[in-house]
Amino acid sequence: MARTQASRALRSETGSVGGRSPSRLDHATLLGLAGAFGLLATAIVLGGSPHAFVDAPALLIVLGGTVGITTICFSLQDMARLPSVAARTLFHATPDAAATAFYMLRLAELARKRGIMGLDQVLEDMQNEPFIRKAVSLAVDGTPIEEIRIVLEREISEATERQLRSAGMLRKAAEVAPAMGLISTLIGLVQMLGNLEDPSAIGPGMAVALLTTFYGAVLSNMVLSPLAAKLERNIAEEELVANVSKVAAESICRTDNPRRLELLLNAMLPPAKRINYFS
Amino acid sequence: MARTQASRALRSETGSVGGRSPSRLDHATLLGLAGAFGLLATAIVLGGSPHAFVDAPALLIVLGGTVGITTICFSLQDMARLPSVAARTLFHATPDAAATAFYMLRLAELARKRGIMGLDQVLEDMQNEPFIRKAVSLAVDGTPIEEIRIVLEREISEATERQLRSAGMLRKAAEVAPAMGLISTLIGLVQMLGNLEDPSAIGPGMAVALLTTFYGAVLSNMVLSPLAAKLERNIAEEELVANVSKVAAESICRTDNPRRLELLLNAMLPPAKRINYFS
Amino acid sequence: MARTQASRALRSETGSVGGRSPSRLDHATLLGLAGAFGLLATAIVLGGSPHAFVDAPALLIVLGGTVGITTICFSLQDMARLPSVAARTLFHATPDAAATAFYMLRLAELARKRGIMGLDQVLEDMQNEPFIRKAVSLAVDGTPIEEIRIVLEREISEATERQLRSAGMLRKAAEVAPAMGLISTLIGLVQMLGNLEDPSAIGPGMAVALLTTFYGAVLSNMVLSPLAAKLERNIAEEELVANVSKVAAESICRTDNPRRLELLLNAMLPPAKRINYFS
Amino acid sequence: MARTQASRALRSETGSVGGRSPSRLDHATLLGLAGAFGLLATAIVLGGSPHAFVDAPALLIVLGGTVGITTICFSLQDMARLPSVAARTLFHATPDAAATAFYMLRLAELARKRGIMGLDQVLEDMQNEPFIRKAVSLAVDGTPIEEIRIVLEREISEATERQLRSAGMLRKAAEVAPAMGLISTLIGLVQMLGNLEDPSAIGPGMAVALLTTFYGAVLSNMVLSPLAAKLERNIAEEELVANVSKVAAESICRTDNPRRLELLLNAMLPPAKRINYFS
Amino acid sequence: MARTQASRALRSETGSVGGRSPSRLDHATLLGLAGAFGLLATAIVLGGSPHAFVDAPALLIVLGGTVGITTICFSLQDMARLPSVAARTLFHATPDAAATAFYMLRLAELARKRGIMGLDQVLEDMQNEPFIRKAVSLAVDGTPIEEIRIVLEREISEATERQLRSAGMLRKAAEVAPAMGLISTLIGLVQMLGNLEDPSAIGPGMAVALLTTFYGAVLSNMVLSPLAAKLERNIAEEELVANVSKVAAESICRTDNPRRLELLLNAMLPPAKRINYFS
Repeated sequence: MARTQASRALRSETGSVGGRSPSRLDHATLLGLAGAFGLLATAIVLGGSPHAFVDAPALLIVLGGTVGITTICFSLQDMARLPSVAARTLFHATPDAAATAFYMLRLAELARKRGIMGLDQVLEDMQNEPFIRKAVSLAVDGTPIEEIRIVLEREISEATERQLRSAGMLRKAAEVAPAMGLISTLIGLVQMLGNLEDPSAIGPGMAVALLTTFYGAVLSNMVLSPLAAKLERNIAEEELVANVSKVAAESICRTDNPRRLELLLNAMLPPAKRINYFS
Repeated sequence: MARTQASRALRSETGSVGGRSPSRLDHATLLGLAGAFGLLATAIVLGGSPHAFVDAPALLIVLGGTVGITTICFSLQDMARLPSVAARTLFHATPDAAATAFYMLRLAELARKRGIMGLDQVLEDMQNEPFIRKAVSLAVDGTPIEEIRIVLEREISEATERQLRSAGMLRKAAEVAPAMGLISTLIGLVQMLGNLEDPSAIGPGMAVALLTTFYGAVLSNMVLSPLAAKLERNIAEEELVANVSKVAAESICRTDNPRRLELLLNAMLPPAKRINYFS
Repeated sequence: MARTQASRALRSETGSVGGRSPSRLDHATLLGLAGAFGLLATAIVLGGSPHAFVDAPALLIVLGGTVGITTICFSLQDMARLPSVAARTLFHATPDAAATAFYMLRLAELARKRGIMGLDQVLEDMQNEPFIRKAVSLAVDGTPIEEIRIVLEREISEATERQLRSAGMLRKAAEVAPAMGLISTLIGLVQMLGNLEDPSAIGPGMAVALLTTFYGAVLSNMVLSPLAAKLERNIAEEELVANVSKVAAESICRTDNPRRLELLLNAMLPPAKRINYFS
Repeated sequence: MARTQASRALRSETGSVGGRSPSRLDHATLLGLAGAFGLLATAIVLGGSPHAFVDAPALLIVLGGTVGITTICFSLQDMARLPSVAARTLFHATPDAAATAFYMLRLAELARKRGIMGLDQVLEDMQNEPFIRKAVSLAVDGTPIEEIRIVLEREISEATERQLRSAGMLRKAAEVAPAMGLISTLIGLVQMLGNLEDPSAIGPGMAVALLTTFYGAVLSNMVLSPLAAKLERNIAEEELVANVSKVAAESICRTDNPRRLELLLNAMLPPAKRINYFS
Repeated sequence: MARTQASRALRSETGSVGGRSPSRLDHATLLGLAGAFGLLATAIVLGGSPHAFVDAPALLIVLGGTVGITTICFSLQDMARLPSVAARTLFHATPDAAATAFYMLRLAELARKRGIMGLDQVLEDMQNEPFIRKAVSLAVDGTPIEEIRIVLEREISEATERQLRSAGMLRKAAEVAPAMGLISTLIGLVQMLGNLEDPSAIGPGMAVALLTTFYGAVLSNMVLSPLAAKLERNIAEEELVANVSKVAAESICRTDNPRRLELLLNAMLPPAKRINYFS
């Protein structure tokens, strides 16, 4: 009971953890996709026969072939993880580096006022931020600082590597999609060329054949490649936020002066994200 | 006799070596290949004339040319090894890293209970795992720990390099196949163009010419390239398993506390593969 | 009052800061763009039907698609910064390295004559050169030399990285533009091929389809790629100028002999930019 | 006289130097080339008009152009050396690494039995192996071991670099050939397009134009590229053999125990080439 | 007067500086260009209508566009320097490394006989070799050896970098030329396709459109790329010659034994260039 109260008091002092809303729309991804596909749809509709661009079997062979070939290169578990990975480029939950730095500074001040043990009471507020929670609870448990550094660094490098592997799957799929489009177009061309008696069938035949090249190019250049690039960008940002938490946890553990921690954190943050806690 | 009995007792204690079934189907490779080629076949059959896609001479020149050019770049022995290498991407026998770590922990416990010499009796169970067997028998023979490390590291780096060379052959063949397809298509085009009197022969002529480009693209993008990628993935996994055995053999040799070995091994394993032996 | 007078006296001694006119046209960029686009326009006009090359929807889809896909890969703030970044390749304000070195040598001489504190009075002349101003004011404030080095190096590396990221956006857009051109051309081809009844429409249909490939190629090869290359060149130059200021500020702080500073600066400058202050 | 006798006795003890037959056919290169070109010829002959593929001027422009452009990038001496370099991929004289190791072990044993000076008498047997001869004669001359290492390492790195430069010429030519093929095809197309009045000439015109692309693709993908890859492979093997001789010469100079030399050499050799001299 | 006499005597002893004739034709560049362009011209003339390959506007747009775009990426000064840079691949003045080494050995002998000051009298013979002159005059002036090394190394690395930047301009232009060719071809195709009423104009229209692709391919593959490669080769050679001079100047400054200098220089020279001064 006392604990909850203390926690509530602290919470009002520290604010929400890491300034992270549960899940945030990535406006750049959304607007970029909407804009590019909107223009594409407009161009297709203005051309007068939008149904000519919808060919379920062609779409199936390009999509399915890309998924199949990518599966060979990785494992079934990796493939099962891919949709959620891709979704994170649209609804990403990367905390803000500045907000995290600010929050860690508050924790550092609290730790100075009430002792490291006092942070015990705010641990349960950090359930949305397992990494910060782990970092703080290691400090609260009195783990030696050297061990904290090793454990947190391993966590960070593992998380980064695991996510880069996911981005690698998107990159691989972006490579495979145009190849599948080309292979399907070759199938269509061979079928059309073996059947030239009816001249009126040549045009539509070639149109259908080209459609798979179109699907492959759209899938690769307008979806997979940019999502992989955005994912790599997010990974770098999450690594920065995790490093902010790591440096702060070490500082709290050393019961450093929080002003020194502010200097350390600002040295890691890009200019636009620098914080002004004590001045 | 006594030895066999002891061995049997130990075996029930240690379980099967490395958790490796003699040879395991790689479901991702199988499903990926089946899916992608299934879609291809469907697209071809739906097009109405599947026989138009079977042209033995065209297939022969692309396949044979790819094999021939790849042979020039390597040696006859290397080429003879290629099919078995490729087969390992489908029926691979990579032991599970977690199971190997678990097994090595059991051995470490045994070595603590009965002395390193006691491991002598389980050596014959490890016949499917020559590397683990070598690592353990070096420890049992009382080889100095520094020498164990050097011998095992040389074995690992040599095995890795040898297998990467095999993956390199698949990569090279994946590069050659589309070139052979293009060269054959050029032959077909020149033959067709020299013979334009009969207009009804133009279509089928071009169809046959394009077929080799199709074969080259399929061979490269749907078979050779993904198998090379899968092989490289498997090689990295086998290297990890071998390193787990190496670290464990060194620890057994030092008669370390197995709890410390568990820590060391978990530091090497990815999160999903971490083991919980003592807790 | 006295201060302004002193400052004015000093200003006449030191000259304009860094020899930088407020904003200088980059003649190479301007002439190169004008020449290349002039030739293009001439070729189009001589062909007799310039209006055939203006197709607003085609232009919109290539431009808009490139902007959209590039937006996915970065963030909205990054995109908002892009026009001003691109403009800096045309109206760039990179100070001249030799002029900056000359100016810093004058400051070093002044500091020797009147003491470092004496530089206080020229600080306000440096408002167009925030980096030099920061470097000099750190020296004037008596900041320890080691800290000056760390602060200035962090500023330089951050500025360089931030600008390289902007150049990376131009590079990414240069990659996306031809892909968008190809995708739009495929749309045009499919539309044209589905509609072959009217033979007189085939030519114009293909012409319009090819137009987007043309737009994509022009945008990438004649605008985005060269601007990215020029930007990278400017970034390297600005880094050099900033390093000249950093080395000079350290030297002023050490109250080194200005002749030694001249040697140090000449070692950093390319032969054509070397200065001859004392000889 | 006595010397010759001693030499003969030793020769029967040491066997032929380095196990190298004067010049050995590289079966992989031969079979690969024969197979790939055999299939090509079959495809051409089955098509019915093999003479359509022989066009001396087209062949001349692709071959000559490739030679000319490659000459610009290098020097006349380099070009003169190219045929013999290329021939070495077919009739290569790389000694066997295991045989060299075996031979060096025999020399080491001899040196132990009769002293290093005793090797003087076998020097003349090594005329086909100038590198081994140089290594052994340096040891016999009593050169300090440190100098032996420097001299031999310089020889090895120079020989490797020189040969890699030759392989680089083949790689460059493999890059130039398709470009020359394309340029010639463009010439043919322009000539054909300027002369469309006679429709029956269009087909053969395009056939001849395509022939140069075909020549360029065959020359690059089926000859130059694989020969460069084989050459690079041979260079790595010769470097290994030279390093075996270098390590052995150093060991002989130190009058090490030959058993230790065997260990050292086996550590350098791949598993399939390891030797078993003393066991 | 006495000085000139002494100088003349020395000159006859030391020979011409660096063995460099004022400017030497690069036979490989000349023959390669002549051969490749000769074959091209023959193929064009044999085709019967050489005038079809001369189209001034097409040539202007490809050449001018390439120059324009390359100008954007660099600066006007850089562009002004390009012709003389390109000319140096045809009439290059790289001194021979062996001749330079020989000359430096003579200087070293002279310095031993008459003292370093004695070299003062031959300095004026070295006006064609500013780098050797600078190296020798530094030694004559009694500059400390450490400073000589630093000054000469900075000169060498700056000269190398500056020349590599020039080679980079040729590489960039080689990249731009085919893109300009493609863009011009697209212009030609769009113009032709908008004007299909007159069937007899289709062929010539396409021929003219393809001509720019031809110009771009020739410019890039047969001129710019090989000249850049030759330039990079020459730069590496000049760097070697400069390093020979640097090492010799240091040795002269230390009044080393010239025999030791010969060893040092031979260690830097490729086998074909090694000198035999004292044996």
